[in-house]
Amino acid sequence: MSLLVVGSVAFDSVETPFDKIEKALGGSATFCSIAASYFSDDVKMIGVVGDDFGEQNIQMLKNHKVDISGLEIVEGEKTFSYGCVYRDDMNVRDTLFTDLNVFEKFDPVIPDAMKEIPYLLLGNIMPALQLKVLDQMTNLKFTVCDTMNLWINITREDLLKVMKRVNVLVINDSEAKMLAEENSLIKAAKKVMEMGPEYLIIKKGEHGALLFGEGKIFSAPAYPLETVFDPTGAGDSFAGGFTGFLINEKEINFETMKKAVIYGSTLASFCVEKFSTQGIEKLEKVKIENRFNEFIKFSKVD
Amino acid sequence: MSLLVVGSVAFDSVETPFDKIEKALGGSATFCSIAASYFSDDVKMIGVVGDDFGEQNIQMLKNHKVDISGLEIVEGEKTFSYGCVYRDDMNVRDTLFTDLNVFEKFDPVIPDAMKEIPYLLLGNIMPALQLKVLDQMTNLKFTVCDTMNLWINITREDLLKVMKRVNVLVINDSEAKMLAEENSLIKAAKKVMEMGPEYLIIKKGEHGALLFGEGKIFSAPAYPLETVFDPTGAGDSFAGGFTGFLINEKEINFETMKKAVIYGSTLASFCVEKFSTQGIEKLEKVKIENRFNEFIKFSKVD
Repeated sequence: MSLLVVGSVAFDSVETPFDKIEKALGGSATFCSIAASYFSDDVKMIGVVGDDFGEQNIQMLKNHKVDISGLEIVEGEKTFSYGCVYRDDMNVRDTLFTDLNVFEKFDPVIPDAMKEIPYLLLGNIMPALQLKVLDQMTNLKFTVCDTMNLWINITREDLLKVMKRVNVLVINDSEAKMLAEENSLIKAAKKVMEMGPEYLIIKKGEHGALLFGEGKIFSAPAYPLETVFDPTGAGDSFAGGFTGFLINEKEINFETMKKAVIYGSTLASFCVEKFSTQGIEKLEKVKIENRFNEFIKFSKVD
Repeated sequence: MSLLVVGSVAFDSVETPFDKIEKALGGSATFCSIAASYFSDDVKMIGVVGDDFGEQNIQMLKNHKVDISGLEIVEGEKTFSYGCVYRDDMNVRDTLFTDLNVFEKFDPVIPDAMKEIPYLLLGNIMPALQLKVLDQMTNLKFTVCDTMNLWINITREDLLKVMKRVNVLVINDSEAKMLAEENSLIKAAKKVMEMGPEYLIIKKGEHGALLFGEGKIFSAPAYPLETVFDPTGAGDSFAGGFTGFLINEKEINFETMKKAVIYGSTLASFCVEKFSTQGIEKLEKVKIENRFNEFIKFSKVD
């Protein structure tokens, strides 16, 4: 099945307690597309980069059979660049710089041939842009949307509009509490569901993820990693793995979504083991299946 | 099967964002014994109280068939009293007062007839007292030990001695990190296991619990409660439900312990729904079984 992914493409400079890396490939569309590529040979990525993006990055995406014909390359301008430092506990990151560059004027235009794609993954970008994408799609069957605390704070109204038009919203626990203005996570989830999405996924980092929908709740464990090397892109990889798995399923419902949450968690767990996209660049189906099975076993009671 | 429970018996004065209660029944031995009583008609409780303990508390324990012949009642003295306030997020509590009273001189003496009991639950008390109990037991087959941050901080050496002599250590996530001096929970768990216990349970409150042992890890979900009314006693109820379930099993191993973790979580989830012991006082087997099954369903992938 075809999947359209829209989001940011960036160069990330990341410092962790273990190491640092500069101008590494990043961005929500990038992580989402690579993660989804393990489930579909027809992932189409929409984004924008400068002429500094680099042939090796383009080649890597092509190697994953990601269709980048919708990736706009703006001559004479630079790719969006982001820098951050993770503190000791890896749960807090300080932004060092945000150079929007080409991303400042990003106006996602969906090529005509892609407007009829029924599966859409809205990676984390400004909600106004997510709305623009939704407005262009003509045959949507299933839309997954990721977002972040920044948009909850500064463009809440737009985000609320997006939420009414998507099937699944993916956020983390602090974002859910912020969005619902509610300290209890379970109450927050209820409130967020009332804001529109049919299904809600709350990612809890080292504590796993919760899926809400159809009046039910599913609790997925986290993979017991000793070291989180670099959390950047974990949420995007989750969204990519989650959506990628689902588009091949005959039915998309709570039961298939449970498995999708585990596949999303699987991709996220690989992502955080290395810098940048390195953790999800060179996976194989069998490696993904093995870890998926480990996840299942990890919370199974006979 | 018989189970010996040793711990504190107290009057708790608790204030939460919802309500407050004064001089309510509390203490680790109390919660542990009541929780375990749903699995065994032969729970024997060792502790100490003053002559202010009150007939209704004695009667309630007797109604649960808890053998309190080992509960010392000191005439002319007062029961251990503890007061605390929970802040908005219920994860932080401020101690208001700690009046040790009779508990200050508590020297657990195990009656001869109880020394041969093979199953022991060391509720949260000073590790030196836990060691005294261990020294008196002659036929131990299976010992579960609970503790707290205070003992990790001020009597670490004694706690390390206890840990070498028990089968299961039950602590929460911040205690595990504190004990191991390690920020990564999974690394912390490994280090704590190296300190002695055969099995380790790390309670994570609203994020469930992890069981470590036999080179395996099990992740148990939390019950999706909208409101935690009063967290006091949740850990003790967990330990009581966990141990109570296990003493009836033919084999105590990682597989049966997985179920025990869910039963412990079940009792803890009832505990936090009401003040003091009220949440676990009036349960029935069927109510416990139903919630146990909800727990199982909650993380099950078909």
